Amino acid sequence: MNKAKRISLRQKLYTIVFEAETKAGRTFDIILLFLILFSVFIICLETVPSINHHFRSYFKILEWVFTILFSLEYLLRIYSSPRPFRYLFSFFGIVDFLAILPTYLSLILGGYQYLLVIRILRLLRAARIFKLTRFINEGQVLTRALRASLPKISVFLGVVLMVVVIVGSIMYIVEGSKNGFTSIPKSIYWAIVTLTTVGYGDIAPATTFGQILASFLMIMGYGIIAVPTGIVSVELANSEKQTFNTRICPHCHKEGHAKDANFCSNCGNNLTSPESDTTS
Amino acid sequence: MNKAKRISLRQKLYTIVFEAETKAGRTFDIILLFLILFSVFIICLETVPSINHHFRSYFKILEWVFTILFSLEYLLRIYSSPRPFRYLFSFFGIVDFLAILPTYLSLILGGYQYLLVIRILRLLRAARIFKLTRFINEGQVLTRALRASLPKISVFLGVVLMVVVIVGSIMYIVEGSKNGFTSIPKSIYWAIVTLTTVGYGDIAPATTFGQILASFLMIMGYGIIAVPTGIVSVELANSEKQTFNTRICPHCHKEGHAKDANFCSNCGNNLTSPESDTTS
Amino acid sequence: MNKAKRISLRQKLYTIVFEAETKAGRTFDIILLFLILFSVFIICLETVPSINHHFRSYFKILEWVFTILFSLEYLLRIYSSPRPFRYLFSFFGIVDFLAILPTYLSLILGGYQYLLVIRILRLLRAARIFKLTRFINEGQVLTRALRASLPKISVFLGVVLMVVVIVGSIMYIVEGSKNGFTSIPKSIYWAIVTLTTVGYGDIAPATTFGQILASFLMIMGYGIIAVPTGIVSVELANSEKQTFNTRICPHCHKEGHAKDANFCSNCGNNLTSPESDTTS
Amino acid sequence: MNKAKRISLRQKLYTIVFEAETKAGRTFDIILLFLILFSVFIICLETVPSINHHFRSYFKILEWVFTILFSLEYLLRIYSSPRPFRYLFSFFGIVDFLAILPTYLSLILGGYQYLLVIRILRLLRAARIFKLTRFINEGQVLTRALRASLPKISVFLGVVLMVVVIVGSIMYIVEGSKNGFTSIPKSIYWAIVTLTTVGYGDIAPATTFGQILASFLMIMGYGIIAVPTGIVSVELANSEKQTFNTRICPHCHKEGHAKDANFCSNCGNNLTSPESDTTS
Repeated sequence: MNKAKRISLRQKLYTIVFEAETKAGRTFDIILLFLILFSVFIICLETVPSINHHFRSYFKILEWVFTILFSLEYLLRIYSSPRPFRYLFSFFGIVDFLAILPTYLSLILGGYQYLLVIRILRLLRAARIFKLTRFINEGQVLTRALRASLPKISVFLGVVLMVVVIVGSIMYIVEGSKNGFTSIPKSIYWAIVTLTTVGYGDIAPATTFGQILASFLMIMGYGIIAVPTGIVSVELANSEKQTFNTRICPHCHKEGHAKDANFCSNCGNNLTSPESDTTS
Repeated sequence: MNKAKRISLRQKLYTIVFEAETKAGRTFDIILLFLILFSVFIICLETVPSINHHFRSYFKILEWVFTILFSLEYLLRIYSSPRPFRYLFSFFGIVDFLAILPTYLSLILGGYQYLLVIRILRLLRAARIFKLTRFINEGQVLTRALRASLPKISVFLGVVLMVVVIVGSIMYIVEGSKNGFTSIPKSIYWAIVTLTTVGYGDIAPATTFGQILASFLMIMGYGIIAVPTGIVSVELANSEKQTFNTRICPHCHKEGHAKDANFCSNCGNNLTSPESDTTS
Repeated sequence: MNKAKRISLRQKLYTIVFEAETKAGRTFDIILLFLILFSVFIICLETVPSINHHFRSYFKILEWVFTILFSLEYLLRIYSSPRPFRYLFSFFGIVDFLAILPTYLSLILGGYQYLLVIRILRLLRAARIFKLTRFINEGQVLTRALRASLPKISVFLGVVLMVVVIVGSIMYIVEGSKNGFTSIPKSIYWAIVTLTTVGYGDIAPATTFGQILASFLMIMGYGIIAVPTGIVSVELANSEKQTFNTRICPHCHKEGHAKDANFCSNCGNNLTSPESDTTS
Repeated sequence: MNKAKRISLRQKLYTIVFEAETKAGRTFDIILLFLILFSVFIICLETVPSINHHFRSYFKILEWVFTILFSLEYLLRIYSSPRPFRYLFSFFGIVDFLAILPTYLSLILGGYQYLLVIRILRLLRAARIFKLTRFINEGQVLTRALRASLPKISVFLGVVLMVVVIVGSIMYIVEGSKNGFTSIPKSIYWAIVTLTTVGYGDIAPATTFGQILASFLMIMGYGIIAVPTGIVSVELANSEKQTFNTRICPHCHKEGHAKDANFCSNCGNNLTSPESDTTS
């Protein structure tokens, strides 16, 4: 009996901590989200010298509050999970662990600044928000579209990389180190900065031929940005169709009816009637 | 009788001041639009030192002309509105008030320069132009598409913000303050400048590893710009379809059938048959 | 008889000089195109100090050759045109005149450098190439799509201008003249540079609040670039449909059949048969 | 008999070296790909002064290993090809030759640095990867879409070039050499940098009129980027449709029907009926 009770407590905890279907679960997730975002915000502020100078002690206290809260949550997750080891070595399990580790390590190693920046990975925990029902559908449509775009975008990126390496190498010869193109890797960096239309201007062509070549690269970059956009547009349109219109007319097998359709727009069959084929 | 006359005057004024259906109303709106744009243009010129030096007194006179005209219009709106309080606290009511307030305040507080810049909010009043019939349809299609895109774009922006915070933090460690990455917030600012392909160049990576990371961020930014574009394209196509298909079913009078529909999706009436009502 | 002959000569000249349907007309257009492009290329080179220094006299000779050839062509156009005055005051008539005027004026006024740059307008004459049949269809599809996009893009540009003026004004207050934001017009210029993701870096925000505001503007610019792209994509798809698939099934009135279709894909009606409705 | 054996050896080699259908052929291609990428990576590192300083001798040995391997492969290709001369003067034949030439030439001419950069063209050999079945379909869809977009994109690029030349010339007059606009070619370079939203900032307008003109160019560039994107999106959607609809008409065996087709567009057979051949 006692054991059954404990199991039921663990199940209840599981629905609160891991799921977002119940009201308690959703509340838990939203509180956690705000804690994560607030904690990340504090980490950012800590690195601003002028602010850190004044509020160092407050930041330290806040950090320990966050760490203890996240540690408790971590233990709760291990306790309530039906397969604790699977959780521990899952993506979110590792991120949860990395989110609390640096603060404890700082006790041993002292407050080595760069170690503490690892805490920013806490932000990845906020990705749990996409579990909330509001976003699941949107997330699925986007993910499906991006997955379907992947092979075409790989081919596209392969071509882009070839262009960038070859143009970078030519610019290395044409411009040379006196104009900032000190090596091929640096010239490739410049080519990426240019092709993606970022254009820092830290390295810029100075010779006439270099500027002509750069002009071609820019116009090319301006034009081929159309390719990934076109790919994703087409896949998104496909992906959307799959989600929102899966009803098929049992008479003419036309897919993709409007959500409020009572009759098939193609053959006039009654879509809402239980005997599925009304025309025959 | 006198009261009825006054009411009819208020109604007439209402159609002129608030609506754009009648010729008088449209004329009023267009004159107002030009006044607003001209007034904003003058405010801009006022802040240019060399111009202000020469025309200061003319600007002052013009400003009082605008303010008095806009004040009269404001009073007219209050008078003619059937529910004056509802107008006063509506979005446009507040903007109308803020548009004339600073000039009067400057009498009391003296010409405090930054206060006067608030007058630029007058420009928001120009948004009333979208009431004109020419733009209503276009505005609706765009608004509907953007509203439909919002959930997907929120998910997208959430992912973008995560990328920007994490990449910014890594660059803060990699590049350090000697290369301009003085704090995490500043590094996040750099990451946004890079991901959006703006690329000021005020902060730019100087180490090899930083440049490699920046290259990935740029190519990523170049690629994921496809996502909002794809989303909006798809939603615009949907939004357009909903607007332009005004065919009405002759049997059940349902509007807005899909362009390739043969039968009414509501009552199953054959839309393509010459004898328009096939079900009766 | 002599008069009739002259008329027929003028008609022949007309088909050569103004049209591109005949072989002679197409040859004339292509030779002209090369002359125009070569002449523009020479004008560009003339302004490079190091090149002009060496080849000044060659450039002068070439320029007179071009001017005389274009003058002859201009006279030919006036002679062969059935309504010379209509040609003279048409867009291309004025451009043709401006293309030869500066060289003659330089005889009177001396070689005032900036006057000669007007000759670059010759390039506009190259727009005649879009008359060639190869491009007519493409040009029409693009023009129709852009014309259909215009109202929506106007609304979009109106919103963009409002954003740019208001953000520019806020930045003028926030950053002030010490960071380069010396006046509202200059701040608006910065806002446009940022929103369009050009990002020169000649003016860049230096205060924390300015950088936060700039970040929002950048992400906004990155996002709303999707709007014109979506608009044009949708209109291009519509425009393309109108051009390539205008056949309508006479039985079910379905539009948009594949080019090689013999039967309607919707109702099976024979599209190629002379008695248009085969199923009834 | 001996001769037949030799021929069969050549045929076997051919399927390994030139094709990617068999397992051996695919393995050969993947090993070759890694060799090419590794060799290109080494060439890049060689140009970094600090790295080259330490590992010069290792790089030299590696380079000879690569060159000998690629030379053997080159000889194998010539031997196994049924038409060796056709291979030698094909695109890939020339690239394969250029990939090994510079190292041998360096024996005669000494290690002239810029000559060795030609070796980077080896990367083009990696384009052979697109033969692998995984990418063939993707590559075809992209290639077909880009080919279909070409005429429209040519018209678009023609207009862009006109804009860039004319705006560049005006800026040359407006800004003059004191602001960096030293010649028309340089001003055109600036116009391209601006229109494509790259925005280095090495040349930036300094006069008020120049900044107004630049603002128009930027907004224009921001807007017209929609045009190639729209073109490619539409063509990609068309290209995809052509590829994926592999339904075959059971009556006339025509492949590639539109997704919403009820009847075969070639013979009028009812595609949706369960008894698949309705016409007989």
